[in-house]
Amino acid sequence: MSLVVMKFGGTSVGSVERIKNVAKRIAKRKEEGHDVVVTCSAMGGETDRLINLLTEISPKYDPREYDMLVSTGEQASIALVTQALKEMGYDAISFTGPQIGMVTDGAHSKARIKEISAERLKEAISKGKICVVAGFQGIFPETGDITTLGRGGSDTTAVAIAAAINADVCEIYTDVDGIYTADPRIVRGARKLDKVSYEEMLELSSLGAKVLQSRSVEFGMKYGVDIMVLSSMEEKPGTLVTKEDIEMEKVIVSGVTADKNQAKITIRGVPDRPGIAAEIFGRLAENHINVDMIIQNVSVELKTDLSFTVAKTDLLRAMDVCEKVAKDIEAQDVISDEKIAKISVVGVGMKSHAGVAADMFKTLQENNINIQMISTSEIKISAVIEEKYSELAVRVLHEKLLPEGEDAS
Amino acid sequence: MSLVVMKFGGTSVGSVERIKNVAKRIAKRKEEGHDVVVTCSAMGGETDRLINLLTEISPKYDPREYDMLVSTGEQASIALVTQALKEMGYDAISFTGPQIGMVTDGAHSKARIKEISAERLKEAISKGKICVVAGFQGIFPETGDITTLGRGGSDTTAVAIAAAINADVCEIYTDVDGIYTADPRIVRGARKLDKVSYEEMLELSSLGAKVLQSRSVEFGMKYGVDIMVLSSMEEKPGTLVTKEDIEMEKVIVSGVTADKNQAKITIRGVPDRPGIAAEIFGRLAENHINVDMIIQNVSVELKTDLSFTVAKTDLLRAMDVCEKVAKDIEAQDVISDEKIAKISVVGVGMKSHAGVAADMFKTLQENNINIQMISTSEIKISAVIEEKYSELAVRVLHEKLLPEGEDAS
Repeated sequence: MSLVVMKFGGTSVGSVERIKNVAKRIAKRKEEGHDVVVTCSAMGGETDRLINLLTEISPKYDPREYDMLVSTGEQASIALVTQALKEMGYDAISFTGPQIGMVTDGAHSKARIKEISAERLKEAISKGKICVVAGFQGIFPETGDITTLGRGGSDTTAVAIAAAINADVCEIYTDVDGIYTADPRIVRGARKLDKVSYEEMLELSSLGAKVLQSRSVEFGMKYGVDIMVLSSMEEKPGTLVTKEDIEMEKVIVSGVTADKNQAKITIRGVPDRPGIAAEIFGRLAENHINVDMIIQNVSVELKTDLSFTVAKTDLLRAMDVCEKVAKDIEAQDVISDEKIAKISVVGVGMKSHAGVAADMFKTLQENNINIQMISTSEIKISAVIEEKYSELAVRVLHEKLLPEGEDAS
Repeated sequence: MSLVVMKFGGTSVGSVERIKNVAKRIAKRKEEGHDVVVTCSAMGGETDRLINLLTEISPKYDPREYDMLVSTGEQASIALVTQALKEMGYDAISFTGPQIGMVTDGAHSKARIKEISAERLKEAISKGKICVVAGFQGIFPETGDITTLGRGGSDTTAVAIAAAINADVCEIYTDVDGIYTADPRIVRGARKLDKVSYEEMLELSSLGAKVLQSRSVEFGMKYGVDIMVLSSMEEKPGTLVTKEDIEMEKVIVSGVTADKNQAKITIRGVPDRPGIAAEIFGRLAENHINVDMIIQNVSVELKTDLSFTVAKTDLLRAMDVCEKVAKDIEAQDVISDEKIAKISVVGVGMKSHAGVAADMFKTLQENNINIQMISTSEIKISAVIEEKYSELAVRVLHEKLLPEGEDAS
């Protein structure tokens, strides 16, 4: 017998019919002899409905009132899931975030978990109850106010609860059935991974795999929680996100991803003197704009070009900041390019295997795909290319680095 | 400057446009120099939507999960109303029932208020904030569970808060503009009352005037809270529900009402021996069936007929109980009649004016309306008649007892 945390997203609890199905999945785990804790998101569409009401009233809403409002979505869904379990004859009970002592900081609408006392939760588990906990929400104890963790925070809630109650596994039920070596809609030969390390998953999820929220993976890594990504629709094996082991290192590359949500900014004719980069990126940080890749050309006549990427949604604000900075530092001008894609190859095995980067660049070159920017980490190589080549790049790289017949994990 | 509690029902906060209007009404009171506390119901239709989801999952739902679910409706509306006030530039803050220490017993879905600490509320008021409190909900401190007061509980919340913070008045905004001497849709000459006593209001509200929840009036009477019933649509004077004064006693009759929600049960051939009535009404009470009027005929040959009225919604269950009891006590049989109406004449002035009952019976007789049952209190006379004569009875009684030209209050 083990202790299992099961997390269901908004689509899985999007209707009465689906809630009943979720209850069946939960009941099955219970019948297998496990202790079960469930966390749920709001019913699909509910959070957007509430936010739309709020923005109709005030486009610049107060984060405290936002939290008061949107936290109702999860509170409603846990009651409904609990009722569905009770209807099937199971002893179930729902809890809000505050009720299980999900303590966060006071950063409304993007709060961070500080601790989980989980007393009521542990007591209910010990009585054999199936506990259904509202995802995404907590309490700031100084004021007693309800907080939310930011969108996608239900994954983080699930993993954090699993850590707090020392669960054996945290199962995340999603609309995909696991983590793939590439997007199966783009690459025919894409294969599901049985296992992936936290580090790889972080690279994959921040690069557009979109299956797990990065924060939940960080939490899992920090507290050593095994995370299983599973389909909420079908019963079949998923992908286990866990700590790196020797077996994993044998696999050199575990995935190829494309991210089209970035844009490139180039400040041309930047005077090449100390402190200039700090000035530029400092001003962007002050404006809460995250910069991803950065490259600086060799300077010619004490002038250089500085290119970097930002999220497409930040591009307009970033351009504003950069144009002001360019004037201040007497750079030539600022140009931007939205039509880019960042292609990444990820794998813990790359640490001990040279040559992946060379293979990657050669493959792109053979297909006449020009590389605009490169960045690398121990387990990842990313290249910015023209957006229109994105799918082609993923396909040829997958074919080269993850040929069919070779097991991905 | 005074301290005002304003309560808005579901219709008043039923859309973004209406929420903005409510915010304007609140802002106006604030601008007049008052401290303002607001309580809201859920957006119109929301509570029913949630209950429908729940009953689709399980017709016999758990009251704790019901409370967890439906309390989200008020939590959402307070955030929206608060945001609307903030958008207008006012310093406003929302609170859930638990956050203001609205302590209830543990009777989920029909909890009773035990105390309100109101600490956070008082502190926020002292800082000049407009406080928007979720109606209808509280907390059972032994478990930390969310409770609800039962439908219509938002009126009770408002009056209870007014009592806890010692407010000068509790304003209840409704879809009518006050308390009338009779239903204006039935009686052309019906007039709005400026003032009505708690006792009269209790008789009126339990008799189908439906403007204020009885519990809120009882609360107001117990703690001496002045309750003003006002229109949420138009700005015009309403009706003040307050303690009886000498001026009120001058008015003999303040209203005529009809209640068609009762049904009559008659147990025929009941053996006339001690303890029989206790047996019958004890069994009904055990089954949570409230009995309103009771009459017992003079017995003939040690047998008597016993008639009483119950809510129409309880009729089937009441008949079940009565048929069993009838068998046990060897009564003849049980018959029921749903086609009845209870017509009532209410007024504190009746205490000191004889003759109202005689006038009432004579008026009904003149119009060939047969009286089936009669019950009286110090300030009320009720008669059960055939349902089809209900409107006629109200009209002729209003004409006789509250003739036009005579001020009703």
